[in-house]
Amino acid sequence: MASGTEREMNGAESLVRTLLASGVDTCFANPGTSEMHFVDALDRVGGMRPVLGLFEGVVTGAADGYARMLDRPASTLLHLGPGLANGLSNLHNAMRAQSPVVNVIGDHATYHRRHDAPLTSDVEGTARPFSHWVRTSLNADAVATDAAAAVAAARSTPGRVASLILPADAAWNPISAAGRPLSEGLPAPTLAPAPSEETVSAVAALLGAGASTALLLGGRSTRAQSLEWAGRIAAATGATLITQTHAARITRGAGRVPVQRLPYPVDQARAMLSRFDNLVLVGAKAPVAFFAYPDRPSELAAPGMNIQVLSDPTQDAEAALELLADRLGATDAEPPRAELSVPDVPTGGPLDAGSLGPVLASMLPEGAIVVDESITTGRSFWPSTITAAPHDWLLGTGGAIGYAMPNAVGAAIACPDRQVVCLESDGSGLYQPQALWTMARENLDIVTVIFSNRRYAILDGEMRNVGGAGGGAVADQLFGLDRPAVDWVSVARGFGVDGVAVDDVTGFTKALRHGFNTPGPSLVEVLL
Amino acid sequence: MASGTEREMNGAESLVRTLLASGVDTCFANPGTSEMHFVDALDRVGGMRPVLGLFEGVVTGAADGYARMLDRPASTLLHLGPGLANGLSNLHNAMRAQSPVVNVIGDHATYHRRHDAPLTSDVEGTARPFSHWVRTSLNADAVATDAAAAVAAARSTPGRVASLILPADAAWNPISAAGRPLSEGLPAPTLAPAPSEETVSAVAALLGAGASTALLLGGRSTRAQSLEWAGRIAAATGATLITQTHAARITRGAGRVPVQRLPYPVDQARAMLSRFDNLVLVGAKAPVAFFAYPDRPSELAAPGMNIQVLSDPTQDAEAALELLADRLGATDAEPPRAELSVPDVPTGGPLDAGSLGPVLASMLPEGAIVVDESITTGRSFWPSTITAAPHDWLLGTGGAIGYAMPNAVGAAIACPDRQVVCLESDGSGLYQPQALWTMARENLDIVTVIFSNRRYAILDGEMRNVGGAGGGAVADQLFGLDRPAVDWVSVARGFGVDGVAVDDVTGFTKALRHGFNTPGPSLVEVLL
Repeated sequence: MASGTEREMNGAESLVRTLLASGVDTCFANPGTSEMHFVDALDRVGGMRPVLGLFEGVVTGAADGYARMLDRPASTLLHLGPGLANGLSNLHNAMRAQSPVVNVIGDHATYHRRHDAPLTSDVEGTARPFSHWVRTSLNADAVATDAAAAVAAARSTPGRVASLILPADAAWNPISAAGRPLSEGLPAPTLAPAPSEETVSAVAALLGAGASTALLLGGRSTRAQSLEWAGRIAAATGATLITQTHAARITRGAGRVPVQRLPYPVDQARAMLSRFDNLVLVGAKAPVAFFAYPDRPSELAAPGMNIQVLSDPTQDAEAALELLADRLGATDAEPPRAELSVPDVPTGGPLDAGSLGPVLASMLPEGAIVVDESITTGRSFWPSTITAAPHDWLLGTGGAIGYAMPNAVGAAIACPDRQVVCLESDGSGLYQPQALWTMARENLDIVTVIFSNRRYAILDGEMRNVGGAGGGAVADQLFGLDRPAVDWVSVARGFGVDGVAVDDVTGFTKALRHGFNTPGPSLVEVLL
Repeated sequence: MASGTEREMNGAESLVRTLLASGVDTCFANPGTSEMHFVDALDRVGGMRPVLGLFEGVVTGAADGYARMLDRPASTLLHLGPGLANGLSNLHNAMRAQSPVVNVIGDHATYHRRHDAPLTSDVEGTARPFSHWVRTSLNADAVATDAAAAVAAARSTPGRVASLILPADAAWNPISAAGRPLSEGLPAPTLAPAPSEETVSAVAALLGAGASTALLLGGRSTRAQSLEWAGRIAAATGATLITQTHAARITRGAGRVPVQRLPYPVDQARAMLSRFDNLVLVGAKAPVAFFAYPDRPSELAAPGMNIQVLSDPTQDAEAALELLADRLGATDAEPPRAELSVPDVPTGGPLDAGSLGPVLASMLPEGAIVVDESITTGRSFWPSTITAAPHDWLLGTGGAIGYAMPNAVGAAIACPDRQVVCLESDGSGLYQPQALWTMARENLDIVTVIFSNRRYAILDGEMRNVGGAGGGAVADQLFGLDRPAVDWVSVARGFGVDGVAVDDVTGFTKALRHGFNTPGPSLVEVLL
């Protein structure tokens, strides 16, 4: 800025420098014309890793996976309203996962909007339902302040989705001294408060009273350190630990504090909860059915159950558990821990619900990140792997399918030294198969397993559950993924990923071993 | 309803019956749990064709293509907020195409929403930026009236996107007599008015005054009958006919009234318009640049140009042209017509901008529907094909890429006797490649041609146009689709479509001929 020969700094460069100073160093992107100056600034400034997704759902899903593993935001780069729209469903999942994400969404130059050119749309209105924070930078000088505010919003706890809309002229116009990139005095994120002493005391009293109690763990309370506290509380009081059905990330396996998981089917969830007199909510709301069904209540807890809140989802669950353990005098208790116990690697037989879980359990590498969207096929995987090598388990948090492959991309970018295992159903995998290309481009250590039953199999059961007749030709037409069957090995090869189809245990174990022992991505299609 | 043994009719069945009675007989769908009763009703009632898309962008894009060819709406079926979100970008294109579309979007049961289950989101807020009409059916009895209103809104001219949100309990609850399906007394669509006599007279006077004049044709004025009127006006007055750059559908080829097309590049568009003293807008707004560029104006017409409105986009352009021709005494004039003139089918040489157009022109089947998203590669196709066999040409109207393959699906469903030719760039095609599967499932006569330059090539030019430096490593990382190159033949095979890659004229002509002569879909990857 001092030298007359230096290029003037523009809004885009001020934005990139402010993001970097705020700790955002990765950008999942699919840019267009209105984002060219941001791209140019990435080149000029350096230090931000650009990762291209072929579709915006890959971009936003990767940002979610990245955030779940690092607890800090990546940036996305999206092209006007439609580019944002393509990424919304995975932003929905990110919101439900409490993942910090900073979206940078290009828009037309401010003076161009009134002309209603073909790509004009209501970008703020599009962002709002899927963002906690939305702001349009009105000029180049505002960009640095707005970007710092966006990062602070995203980094608040629980994590938030912040959407910053960047008109093209706010990116390309030169800044004045007032618009210089921020590197100090950055706004602080708002951190979740711990619960009050009264609340902790009340829950401690409840746990001390002897009735059977479950702790329902939500938010970040399923991470290692929180689980240590929860395990001590369980050891001291006999309480049972249960996670929400759709937890964002659960630290588990050998050496970790084991937790049960609330089942998706309503009757099973109600049965699990009915064994307890008390339910203590830790970073969770009272559990409800994923969908309403005509003859079942929305609430999963029986009407007479005593529900007490230790911390709601906006509070600091880890601090809450630590305070509770302290109040109970349980800080030195020895928590229960899963002991390593895996079956021998199976050597033959058919692939089915009975064999898939043991194969996974026996072969899961230490430190693996499992991204699970295996839906109906995968319901046996959870109990099978509880004593496997230590790992993290990520789940679909918002019910928008197509999350797993993009999340796997983000997790692998975040944790390059860990093996990522993406457990994907064929119906969900067909939402964002383009993620395979980014796995190849970035040479990510991801083994994607497609459970190929050639059907939206969950819908057969859901049709029954809602009281529909089912079984008709239209239902078959809309639930069936056969006619033609998707050949996942060809799809993967098309996107640059080697794959193999397997139909027995021997083939599956061989393919997994090869995938785990080979750098870069691979795909295994499990023919069911 | 009369017999005690009959099943009670529910809201979903009332909806399906009302849609059918309103002339909606095709449903592009990707359902989930909250749509099960609608699926069940489709089976029970019969008469509605269900077409499954593996991703909602395919669903909405197909509805757009269907509407462009038939001028009446299909229904979509979408699963809550995220399912809708996945379809928004192609709804944006549909809005810009003035395509009638009726979205049916399932939502949680009304009483379940307050529990904020994982899939809960603001569905109305999500629909609003990409719909002209949004309503939530609050109970089963409201569904028939709401559905009829949605269809009437969609069928208005210009065509509209109507989004009807259907809570699960409004679908599954029984109707009373007040909720019976509507089959008569259906609400009438609002039809676009013709321009006033004064307006027509003023434009006639302008055209009679001798200065050079261009008619800019938007909306449905690029269809056959409107072009006949426009051609008579041109014959009588010497006016030039120009369509908007991103017309929804243009009837053209031998025997049709030929029109120029306003170029996408700003300088070329301005040069074309600068040849005229007057610009008459027919179903169009004053032309503007697709994007703003720092050193160029948004308006494409020079400041001194005389712009006069014959009909704005909300008025009936065909009626306007007929009235104008009548006022000019031109109703019996003989319009100019393109004479059939195609090159011999080329027999060899490399594939490039010079050879691709002639190959297409020489081989295009009579009555073909060309769905064009060939972006940079395709800029020569338009002039090459103006004297080819008669055909329709569809273009990306809203700038949201990934429209062509889904639109081709809808056009082929709408017009099963016509050959569909989908001209797709690789970057755009990678947005919704899942459309290939629906082509295979429905055995649609679509030849998809992928122009594979392995780059978002348009962005190299756009970077220059906005004054960026370009050429850096980040730009190359974000514009390049190599490393790895997508193998489109494998992708297509994975989705059940036979394909072939070609790199010379002989291979291309052979592949096209095979595709045109073989029922069902095929893909040709043109390696550039």
